[in-house]
Parts: sequence; structure tokens; C-alpha cells
Amino acid sequence: MDTVVSLQNDKVKLAYGLQNRTRTRQKERKIVLEGTRLVRDAIERNNKPLFVLFQPENVDFELIAELQNRNFQLIPVNAEVMAHVSDTQNPQGIVAVFPMPMPTLPKKPRRVLILDNVRDPGNMGAMLRTAAAAGVDVVILSPGCADAYNPKALRSGMGAHFRVPTAEAEWHEITSYCEGMNIYLTAGDGNLTYDSVDWKADWAVIIGSEAHGVGEKAEILAQKRIRIPMAAKTESLNAVVAAGVVLFEAVRQRK
Amino acid sequence: MDTVVSLQNDKVKLAYGLQNRTRTRQKERKIVLEGTRLVRDAIERNNKPLFVLFQPENVDFELIAELQNRNFQLIPVNAEVMAHVSDTQNPQGIVAVFPMPMPTLPKKPRRVLILDNVRDPGNMGAMLRTAAAAGVDVVILSPGCADAYNPKALRSGMGAHFRVPTAEAEWHEITSYCEGMNIYLTAGDGNLTYDSVDWKADWAVIIGSEAHGVGEKAEILAQKRIRIPMAAKTESLNAVVAAGVVLFEAVRQRK
Repeated sequence: MDTVVSLQNDKVKLAYGLQNRTRTRQKERKIVLEGTRLVRDAIERNNKPLFVLFQPENVDFELIAELQNRNFQLIPVNAEVMAHVSDTQNPQGIVAVFPMPMPTLPKKPRRVLILDNVRDPGNMGAMLRTAAAAGVDVVILSPGCADAYNPKALRSGMGAHFRVPTAEAEWHEITSYCEGMNIYLTAGDGNLTYDSVDWKADWAVIIGSEAHGVGEKAEILAQKRIRIPMAAKTESLNAVVAAGVVLFEAVRQRK
Repeated sequence: MDTVVSLQNDKVKLAYGLQNRTRTRQKERKIVLEGTRLVRDAIERNNKPLFVLFQPENVDFELIAELQNRNFQLIPVNAEVMAHVSDTQNPQGIVAVFPMPMPTLPKKPRRVLILDNVRDPGNMGAMLRTAAAAGVDVVILSPGCADAYNPKALRSGMGAHFRVPTAEAEWHEITSYCEGMNIYLTAGDGNLTYDSVDWKADWAVIIGSEAHGVGEKAEILAQKRIRIPMAAKTESLNAVVAAGVVLFEAVRQRK
């Protein structure tokens, strides 16, 4: 196949749109993964790219060879096209379009993380990464959250998107999904300390963003409000750090 | 005093240099704090600004009044000057120059965080914030770390710079400062799990960056290598989250 050099090529236009617009991702039900690590993580979890744009002067050929062995569509592009479809300053020479993952959610989850008002894509990805590391069964994104498939969220997730099932849901769906579980939310003024909770029972925990906290519907759903006690004069932790502290206390108790 | 409108004004030039150059901060032994919250945090901890640039159309006048009551030098500037000396897209209209803090380090610290190879200023600030929240006595920065007074580090520290004593040190100084303590380092392949450590004894813990890990000198100094066990297929946590998980386990055990 000839090297694509036109920004007007249909696949180039699609990749660009998917990188830059939530609306395009939602309409097309496709996402873009960029960089050696993310593409590798995805194919190792049996996700199949629809096509792969790569820049032959600047790419990990081991990965390209693997994609070729599996008969995925490989399209060489020039540097200008790669810069156009890339979301980073220093592209790694590979941008792949995948169908949007439709993970199967466990019917009887035991450990659920619910994100509320997490609007910053970088934080969203870091939350997913932390949840995957802590062995959470599923992460649910309430309507106020960022798009998990934003390129920044994918980058900071470091492959977590393919290790922990993630789904957007309305609050009434979240309510029925979490029926019978202990539902907590984290808040600076929570009355229970996070380490006094019995994390061995099935739980869901709602975490908000630093800037916006959690919303009213989260407050209604949660049965208990937990906090992380902090040293004098420190009002708050970074929201992702707080998530890590709580989720790994749950891991510790289960051992 | 007349509103300063010239970028050639000596104080404006100094503030600009301190915002943008580590070398200027080190030569002048001064730092810049920007924004209502950081300036307030600093003066509440008895730090005294040398002078304060503010933009009268766009500032928190309660803070300005407080600075005036304490007889600090207040210099009104126009929007162009404020944009020039600001490190942010949306300046909060206040930029203050302070002497570089020279915190008194505790002689007999019980809980020490040592940062190694933390080169990203945003991560540096987040580490300090996490350490302050976890009640660490002192944070030591090894020679490979970012400047703690970089404006991005100050911003992500959210005032932690004034709540936990922080000092740069050479490795031989770190070695003698931590004599008699249990010294740990965190590493993905550590042989001890972080929650099997006795954190009630005096400790120092060395944390590296995600990209660069810890260096050789850290490996020599540390007596034990600890890790955070993670769910399958997740190789690593964000370094700041890892710091939070370890430091708050230490808090939990001390209670």
C-alpha cells in the first residue's frame, strides 16, 4: 500500500476526529489508541484494531510485525499525517482505531468504584489505573464524568482501560446495579474513617473530583460517608491519591 | 504608588526571573508565590513577602487588605505586567516575592520521606502535598530532583511547602541525617510488602519517579525494598499514588 500523505484521506480524517471529539467517538462507537504500549495492551486483551496508521521512519517494528502476523490493516503515513492524527508532542509513530470496548460487566460485582464529577481526563485515566491495580471489579462513570476514551485519559490510564471493565451509567442504573452492597462515599467531612470500614463485605465506593466533590445523587445513594484523617492544616489530598489510599486499604483487609 | 506598567521595572524583572528560572531563584534566594491561596498559606505560616504585585481590577481585596494591615509592600500593576509575571493562563491578580524558606529541620525526625529522581515539578508538588497530609516530619530532595520552588511544583503542592519542612541534600548528608532509622525504598520488585513493615519504629522511605525509579545511591542506602502488591497485569501505580498508599499505611499503624 502506498504511503498516505493526504490529510483528506478518509481514515486519516476519521482518526483525527476520534482523537479530538467526544461526539465523533460516541457517534462512530470507535476510539483511537496511540503509542506502542497502549496498542500492545489492547491487542493482548483481544481487542482488534479496524486499521493502524504508522510512520515507517519512527515506529516499533516488533509491534508492526505482530500486527501484520495477525492480519490487521496497516497503513503507512508520512510525518505530516502522523503529526496531524497524533495527540502528543512526540508521536511514537503508531495510531490505531479500535471499536469502542463494550466490556461485559460482572453480574455480581464485589468491589465497585463509582466516579462522580471527575471531569479532568488526566485524573480519569489515573483513577482507572489505580482501580485496576487495586483489583476493583468494575468502574462506573456517572453522567458528570469526562469521557474515559479521551486521548489524555487513555494515556494516563496506561492500559487500565483494558484491564478493568468500565461503563458509563445513569444514577438509577447505578442504584440497581449496586443493590445489596455497602455504598460509601469519600468526603473531607465524612464521619467514618476509611480504615474503620469493613472492606471484606461487598462494597461500592463513590469518589468525586477535587474541584467539584460528589453531587447530590451520590449523596442520596451512599449509606455512609468516609474520610481519610489528615495531619493538621492539610484540608485535602489529591483525589487520585485519596482513591489509592482507600482502595488499597480494601485490598489490605481482604488479604 | 503609581500603577507599574513597564516590563522593565526592576521588581517586575525580578518576579519574572524567579518565576521562570531555577538559577535566578538559587542566586537570589527568593521565590515567587502566585494566587490567593498560596500567598495566604505562606503569610499564615509567618512568611513575609518582600513585595507583592497585584492587579487591582482582578484580585481578592480581602487578602490585599490583610497584607496592607501587616505593612507589606503592595505594588499595583496593569494587566500586561500581571500576564508577564504570571505562570498561569488565568492569573488571580497576585504575585508575591518571598525570601526562600529556610525551614528548621527536626534534629530527631521520626518519619522522613526522601524523594529521588522526581524530575517532574507537578509530581514534586503532589508528593509534598501527600507527605504533609500524612504527617511526615521532613521531606528530603536528593540531587536528581526538580526544584521544589518551581511554580508548577508550588501550585500542585497547594501550600504543602509551608506545612512540611523540605530540604535539598547530598546523599552523604542524607545518610548521616537518617542514621539509626529503618530505611526503605519502594520498588515494583521489592521483596517485602509495604503493609508487613513495622511503621511504628522510626523510618525513612525513599520514593523515585515513575519514569526513572530510584538511583544507585538510594539502593545503597536503603536496607529494605518494599512493594505494593497489585492485581494481575498491572505493573505499576502512579508514583504519587504509591507514595500515598505507603505513607497512609504508616499513619494507620501509628494510630
